[in-house]
Amino acid sequence: MTDSNRWLLPEGVEEALPPLAERLETCRRQLLDLYHGWGYQLVMPPFIEYLESLLTGTGRGLDLQTFKLTDQLNGRLMGVRADMTPQVARIDAHRLKCEAPSRLCYMGTVLHTRPDGFAGSRSLLQVGAELYGHSGLDSDLEILSLMLETLDVCQVDTPLVDLGHVGIYRALAVQAGMDPDQEITLFDMLQRKALPEIREYLGGLAMEDAPRRRLSALAELNGGDETLARAREVLAGAGDLVSRALDDLEQLAEGLRARYPAVLLHFDLAELRGYHYHTGLVFAAYRPGNGQEVARGGRYDDIGRVFGRARPATGFSADLKTLVRLSGQPESTPARAIFAPADPDTSLAATVTRLRREGERVIQGLSGQTADAAAMGCDRVLVKSNNQWTVVDA
Amino acid sequence: MTDSNRWLLPEGVEEALPPLAERLETCRRQLLDLYHGWGYQLVMPPFIEYLESLLTGTGRGLDLQTFKLTDQLNGRLMGVRADMTPQVARIDAHRLKCEAPSRLCYMGTVLHTRPDGFAGSRSLLQVGAELYGHSGLDSDLEILSLMLETLDVCQVDTPLVDLGHVGIYRALAVQAGMDPDQEITLFDMLQRKALPEIREYLGGLAMEDAPRRRLSALAELNGGDETLARAREVLAGAGDLVSRALDDLEQLAEGLRARYPAVLLHFDLAELRGYHYHTGLVFAAYRPGNGQEVARGGRYDDIGRVFGRARPATGFSADLKTLVRLSGQPESTPARAIFAPADPDTSLAATVTRLRREGERVIQGLSGQTADAAAMGCDRVLVKSNNQWTVVDA
Repeated sequence: MTDSNRWLLPEGVEEALPPLAERLETCRRQLLDLYHGWGYQLVMPPFIEYLESLLTGTGRGLDLQTFKLTDQLNGRLMGVRADMTPQVARIDAHRLKCEAPSRLCYMGTVLHTRPDGFAGSRSLLQVGAELYGHSGLDSDLEILSLMLETLDVCQVDTPLVDLGHVGIYRALAVQAGMDPDQEITLFDMLQRKALPEIREYLGGLAMEDAPRRRLSALAELNGGDETLARAREVLAGAGDLVSRALDDLEQLAEGLRARYPAVLLHFDLAELRGYHYHTGLVFAAYRPGNGQEVARGGRYDDIGRVFGRARPATGFSADLKTLVRLSGQPESTPARAIFAPADPDTSLAATVTRLRREGERVIQGLSGQTADAAAMGCDRVLVKSNNQWTVVDA
Repeated sequence: MTDSNRWLLPEGVEEALPPLAERLETCRRQLLDLYHGWGYQLVMPPFIEYLESLLTGTGRGLDLQTFKLTDQLNGRLMGVRADMTPQVARIDAHRLKCEAPSRLCYMGTVLHTRPDGFAGSRSLLQVGAELYGHSGLDSDLEILSLMLETLDVCQVDTPLVDLGHVGIYRALAVQAGMDPDQEITLFDMLQRKALPEIREYLGGLAMEDAPRRRLSALAELNGGDETLARAREVLAGAGDLVSRALDDLEQLAEGLRARYPAVLLHFDLAELRGYHYHTGLVFAAYRPGNGQEVARGGRYDDIGRVFGRARPATGFSADLKTLVRLSGQPESTPARAIFAPADPDTSLAATVTRLRREGERVIQGLSGQTADAAAMGCDRVLVKSNNQWTVVDA
C-alpha cells in the first residue's frame, strides 16, 4: 500500500469535512431542539451490544447488515448497531419502566455490512423518534407529523408520503393458511412487485380461491386516493383485521391532510418496508422527482416483548447525511473571524479573551507564521493603536 | 439467554439515558462552540477505516485496542477507530492540503477492545482539538490553554497538569546506543517507574557510564518546579536536544502560569503517556485528589509523514463522558413542559404549534391516555375557557 492510497476509505464509508461537518452539526442541533419541543427525551444507545440484545425479534435482514465482533473479555459475539430502533425499544422496555406514554429520540452513527437503503451508504447518521405506550392513531399521526417537521427543518422539498399497513398482508396470509416459509417467499416477491412470479407461486399453493385472489390483487393495490376504495372492493370478505387496517389508513390520511395540505399521499398495500419488526402502519417519505427515500417508519407493537415488556410502539427514522445533502438550505457562508497577530502583549491576550466571550471567532497568529489574516480566513484583524487593540477590517 | 439478561450490556460499554444524555448533549454543544470561537473547524472522521489507514505510524498499543472487521465487499481488514487523532492527522495531510496552520476539532465515539484509560470504559466519547503546521511553543501553549478551557467549560475542578517531553528519553536512548527493542523494554519499565528493575536492566547493557547514569536518573525526575533544575544538573552533558527540551518545558510552564495562575503544574520526565506517536511535549490533566486523568495530549510532528505529508502537529483529547461525570455542574432540572389534552379541536393544534415555535416544550395527550400532566412531567396544562386555549399551572 503506497502513500497515495493509504487514505482511501472503504466504499460507502464517508467522512465529513468542513463546511459539511458544520452543516451536519447545525442540522443535528435543530432536529434535537425540535424533538425536545415535542417532549421527546434524548437517549444514546451503545455502539456495540451482544448480538442477542441487538437482533432479538428483528429478523434476518438486520442480522446480515450487522458487523460482528468478538468480545475479548469473554469470547461472546457482539454486533455493531445497524439500526437504533430496536435499541431504543430495549431502553423503553427495560431501563425506563414508565407506564405513561414515553417519547424518546436519538441521533448516532449506524454501520451496515453492505451498501443499502439511503444513498448506498454503509455509514449512516441515523436520527429518529419513537413513541411508546399508545396504540391509537393519535400516536401514529404524531410520529408522521414529526417526520414531516423533520424534513421541513432540514428544508427538504415537500415530500411524497407512501402509506401501507403490514397487518393486511399478515391477515391475508393467515387466512390463506400459508406456513411461515411460504409467507416469507411471497413477501419477497411482493417487495419486488413481481406480478407473474406472484401469480405462478400462488397458483402452486393449496388454498381456496378467495384468499388466493386477494393475495394476488395486493401487488397492484397502490396509487392515489382511489386505492383504498379499490382495496375495499377487492379485499371484501377478508375479515375485520383487514377492514380495520383500511379504516386506519383512511383516517390517518385525513388527519395528515388537515395538518399538512401540501404533502402528497400515496398508498401501497404491498409495500412492507423491509423492516421485519413492523406490525401495523408503515410509511416512507420520498422526494418527488427523483424518488429517493428520505425517511421511513411505522408501528412495531411487538418488539418490546422479547425484552420482557411488550408496549405499543411507533416511530420513524432518517439519515441526517441524506437530509443535509437533499436540503434546500444554502451552503453556509464561512463564519466571520478576527485575526490576532502573534504578539506577547498581555493586553492582546485579554482582548482576545473578551472578544471570544462576546461570541466572536478569533484566530491567534503563531510566532513565525507567514499566513496572514486573509489566508487564515479572517475578515477582520486586531491592530494596536494608541496603546489599545482594536478590530479593523482586514 | 432469558428475558432478564438479554439486555445486559458488555462490560465497559455504557448507554446514556435521560437526563445524562441531555447533559452530554449540552456539554457537547458548549465545547464545539468553544472550539469554534478559537478558530477550530469541525471534522467527522469515519467510524471504520482500512487498518492500514487507521494504524499506520501509531504503534502496537493502538493495534491491540482496535476491533477488527472484514469488509464483505472485498475481504480487506477494517478497524473500528480506537483513537480519532490519527484520523484527523490523515485528514489534514490528505484532504485539506492547506499550507497555513490549520485547526481542527472533533467529537465522536471510539471503541476499545479492552477497558483502559479513562475510567475503564471501552466506549469513549472522544473530544479533542489539533493544531497543524506550526512547530513553536505558541501552538503547544494554545493547545494546553484550550484543554484547560475545555475543563473549565465542563466545570471540572482546577486540574493538576503533568508536563513531560518524549524527546528527552529518545535522545538519551540514542546516546546510550540502545537498539529499538532495548528502547521499548526500558520504556515499559519507566512507565511503571520500576526503579530496581531499571537499574538492573541498565547494568546488564553495554554502554558508557554517563548515559547509563542519566537514563537511570530519569525515573526519579518528577515533581514540582525544582524538577527542571535537578534535571539540568543530572542530565548535564546530554546534548542540545535535551537542554532544548528542558528550555521548552520551562517556557511552557511560564506561559501557562501567566494565563492560568490557579493551575497546579507537575513535571515528569519519564512519563511518556503511552501514546506511541508523540514526539515532543506530552501532557495530561488530572483531578487533584483522586488522581483521575481527565485529558491528555502532546506534540506528534511525524504522524502525517506516513500519509505523504509531514506537518508539525500538537493536540489534546478527552472523554466527554468522564468530563460530565466529574463535572461540578448541578444536575439539570427537568425542562418545564406544557400538557395539551387529547382534543380534536383545530384551535388547540394551532395553539400547540405556536407555543412550540415560541420555544416551549409541549407534550400532546393521546386519546384514551390516563396519564395526566404531572405523570407526563408537565408543570403547566392547556385548558379551554371562553373558546380559547390558555396555559395554566398544572
